[in-house]
Formats: sequence, C-alpha cells, structure tokens
Amino acid sequence: MDSQRDTTDQFLPRFDAAGLVTAIVTEAATGTLLMVAHMNAEAIALTRATGQAHFWSRSRGALWRKGETSGNGLMLAEMRVDCDQDALLLRVTPAGPACHTGRRSCFYRRVEADGRLTFLNDDAQD
Amino acid sequence: MDSQRDTTDQFLPRFDAAGLVTAIVTEAATGTLLMVAHMNAEAIALTRATGQAHFWSRSRGALWRKGETSGNGLMLAEMRVDCDQDALLLRVTPAGPACHTGRRSCFYRRVEADGRLTFLNDDAQD
Repeated sequence: MDSQRDTTDQFLPRFDAAGLVTAIVTEAATGTLLMVAHMNAEAIALTRATGQAHFWSRSRGALWRKGETSGNGLMLAEMRVDCDQDALLLRVTPAGPACHTGRRSCFYRRVEADGRLTFLNDDAQD
Repeated sequence: MDSQRDTTDQFLPRFDAAGLVTAIVTEAATGTLLMVAHMNAEAIALTRATGQAHFWSRSRGALWRKGETSGNGLMLAEMRVDCDQDALLLRVTPAGPACHTGRRSCFYRRVEADGRLTFLNDDAQD
C-alpha cells in the first residue's frame, strides 16, 4: 500500500499499466450502482471539465462520452477517489437507463447458489 | 458486446488476460460503496462456498480472505453480475471498517474542482 496516496489531499490517480483507473458509477439520488467502466487521464479531465461522464473503451480503444449515441448521458454530481487512488466513484444524475440493455443498472442479475442467474426488476436494484 | 453474456441465465464470468474480474463491494443494508477489489475463479468459488468475501491481490499475487488479518470480514448477502459478466457486485454485511485506514469505506475523499481532496466523515459516505 502506498501510504502517501491514502493520506494526501492531492488528487494523484494511480493508473495501471494500460493507463487506466476503474470508474464506479452510482446514481447520486439513491446510491444505486449503475455501471463500471474505465477512465484514462483524458477521460477524467473531460469529465471534470464538462460535467458529463467520459470513459475509455478497452474493447474499442477509444474515448467515449456516455450517451453520445444513446442519449443517456451521465451528469456528474460528485467524484470521489479511493484510498490508493486507483478507483474513482462517479456519483451521477443519469439522463436515462445506464445499461446498453435498456435497464437502469448493468447489475440486473443475481447469482444463485446453483450458478443460475435471476433477473431483477429495475426497482429491485437499489 | 457479447450479446450472449447479457441475456443468459448462466453465470459465465468473463475473466481478463490476468484471469480476473472487478469486484465492487457495497453494504447490503445501505447500498454504500465500501471498496473495489479483484477476484479470480478461486476467489469467486471460495466466496460462494463460505459466504465470506475472498479476493485476489494483484500487488501480492495471492488469494486473501478479507478480514483474515484485520478481523473485518465481509459476509456475503448477495452476489450480482453485470451485463457483460466482467464485473461482480458483492452486497455484504461488514464486520468492521472495510478500508485498511480504519474508515467505513475506501471512498472517503471527494475530488474538488481545483484538484484538492476533501476528507468525508464515515456518515457522509452513503
């Protein structure tokens, strides 16, 4: 553990070998977990400058603004950083469903003891 | 997007090149984000078998049970998986502070516009 990073009052993101940190997105009003993505330095800077969540797509190798095609952008209410500064929490106000499936949250399935997944309704995701 | 993984009712974790998925840990009773870690197949299996959260430490290259040294274990209430099955949500009942700093959550600092971090009290982390 880098003890400096957990006590400092300076924002010093600890990027991995690919230049990324994990970004956890929750709904500001409810705290509900909406999605997880990755951010590079540019995505962080753009998110802070514009107030709209930007991420780095590992599969496409490209920067993207959430909602640029779907219209379902995420307005930043608050950003937090974890103890070792390799993960960010984005508390947002979503303009629509955060998941590409049209669901409120990407975490819409519960893992059961037998390995089956149970699908949850949007209102059961809090 | 692997469309099969987002519609299936089978738990089929999509591990990265290092054999890991992202694990997001929230407090079951409140939904508060506590910590983020990584899990390999063995950590997932042990967590499901024992009901106590296990992770893979990338820095130490070792499996660990949260609380094995601190005593602050995480009892699993529910596991969920995201649309493309490369991230898990562990809803837990914590036996004590989840963060190694003694705080309830690892996300105890807000990123301000000027790049300074504001430290939050435990009860401001919901």
